[in-house]
Amino acid sequence: MSYGIPRRETHFEPRDPHWDAKVRDSFARQGIMGHLGATLADVWPGGCEIRLPYRPELSQQVGYFHAGVTSTVVDSAAGYAGFSLMAPHTEVLSVEFKINLLAPADGELMIATGEVIKPGKNLVITRGDAWVVKGDKVTHCAMMQQTLMTMHAK
Amino acid sequence: MSYGIPRRETHFEPRDPHWDAKVRDSFARQGIMGHLGATLADVWPGGCEIRLPYRPELSQQVGYFHAGVTSTVVDSAAGYAGFSLMAPHTEVLSVEFKINLLAPADGELMIATGEVIKPGKNLVITRGDAWVVKGDKVTHCAMMQQTLMTMHAK
Amino acid sequence: MSYGIPRRETHFEPRDPHWDAKVRDSFARQGIMGHLGATLADVWPGGCEIRLPYRPELSQQVGYFHAGVTSTVVDSAAGYAGFSLMAPHTEVLSVEFKINLLAPADGELMIATGEVIKPGKNLVITRGDAWVVKGDKVTHCAMMQQTLMTMHAK
Amino acid sequence: MSYGIPRRETHFEPRDPHWDAKVRDSFARQGIMGHLGATLADVWPGGCEIRLPYRPELSQQVGYFHAGVTSTVVDSAAGYAGFSLMAPHTEVLSVEFKINLLAPADGELMIATGEVIKPGKNLVITRGDAWVVKGDKVTHCAMMQQTLMTMHAK
Repeated sequence: MSYGIPRRETHFEPRDPHWDAKVRDSFARQGIMGHLGATLADVWPGGCEIRLPYRPELSQQVGYFHAGVTSTVVDSAAGYAGFSLMAPHTEVLSVEFKINLLAPADGELMIATGEVIKPGKNLVITRGDAWVVKGDKVTHCAMMQQTLMTMHAK
Repeated sequence: MSYGIPRRETHFEPRDPHWDAKVRDSFARQGIMGHLGATLADVWPGGCEIRLPYRPELSQQVGYFHAGVTSTVVDSAAGYAGFSLMAPHTEVLSVEFKINLLAPADGELMIATGEVIKPGKNLVITRGDAWVVKGDKVTHCAMMQQTLMTMHAK
Repeated sequence: MSYGIPRRETHFEPRDPHWDAKVRDSFARQGIMGHLGATLADVWPGGCEIRLPYRPELSQQVGYFHAGVTSTVVDSAAGYAGFSLMAPHTEVLSVEFKINLLAPADGELMIATGEVIKPGKNLVITRGDAWVVKGDKVTHCAMMQQTLMTMHAK
Repeated sequence: MSYGIPRRETHFEPRDPHWDAKVRDSFARQGIMGHLGATLADVWPGGCEIRLPYRPELSQQVGYFHAGVTSTVVDSAAGYAGFSLMAPHTEVLSVEFKINLLAPADGELMIATGEVIKPGKNLVITRGDAWVVKGDKVTHCAMMQQTLMTMHAK
């Protein structure tokens, strides 16, 4: 189900033929994704989508998704969007990000997406967004700008 | 144990005589804090410290604390620094934050601190930091600027 | 000339029937716009475009547009995008912004655009972008996320 | 005159023995500094201070220093703090920054400072601040987090 969320079509040429498998392997190694209950819904060259069903363990004091939880899934979605375009034998690291919380993240499902804006060799700049689904209402609840660094194996 | 981390002495006059109790109550209601294993180590008028022992459930793909986990505890530490100065019968909401990840968050304990820079009536501007402790080495691993909004009860 | 830059069509209902005149009046009062040589190329409800021809007085040390100059025109473009939706008898103030410099701003013309993402009553969240034109090459050189505050007249 | 602004003492070892001269040369080549009327008040290993007297050409619509002008001098102050620590035969570039405008920049003099937080070989992370002086009142009006990149000569 797309929930009407815009999927930005990217037109990047991946540097690694195994981009899909390496992103999925890396996601599976992120302990926090399993601990939160997040799943990798989709990945494509330069883009990624992560989904996270609500549960009380993810809340801030009023019961909504905590801003840090939102940040975690958007950071990973944008990070894997970037990692999908990185060369073989590299690792990805978040250098910094900035997130605006646009609306209370009140709902039963969070959908986080990331897309590459500039795929530099060392620095990759991305954008991320989050939507929260409550019944048949879908609310754009966060947007992010992020800088990633490619770690080259020695 | 202070681990040599600088505690910024603040000199704010709290608007709510029950600032200490209300911060502790609110922290206890944040489901994500318990789910991560974070504890409220200290709170004072305009400042807050949160501690989070490492476990594999908090990791990114290489085994360090995930950037989103770091963001979560720094966002809460800075948020509660701000909340400690808010008037009675208000709630706190993160409007936005920006975090720089200064070093890999590799260690057995994370210490997050927050302090108020400008305690406006509606908007409160804060700074946050995180350190990671590995054996006897303490590394400054993140710094944040954050904007909070005071939600006035209706 | 559009230079192929995407114009985001917005669908906002302005709260002030004189949105166009008030934005143009305010722009004319910004001393820095004239001092840099910037012009208000276009404004629509929730969107704005500013253009700035290059001259050596705008440069950083290598001769490109200075990052602060880029920030200035994107901050104003996004600020006026927000101001166009604000109620009568209000003023606009930048609370904070974050800008990524995507490429060296090397060219003879800078085009800055802003668009409203969330038009709250008090806080307005926007996005901004800048492009630099060099001959027939147009480069996306900056992107911004910005928070504005509506100042209500007393 | 210090105006009571805190000067953070840094304890960095510069990689370039000519750090002082190279910063001053680079500052002199920034066309925008002269165009705004900014002067390099001080530079030390890992730190920098820039001063900018007010004039109407620097204003936003209400007559205060424009947020972009504030950004320009803080970006340069923090950038030169970083550049002072970079190796010989390198150039400095702003990758991104985030600025909070803490108070209206209403006054006759702006003082911008920058200091290095993490002097990486490729990426340098800095903090910046601005104060505005009006009569005998000094107001902390902006704070910044910034990422710089070292450009190595080919």
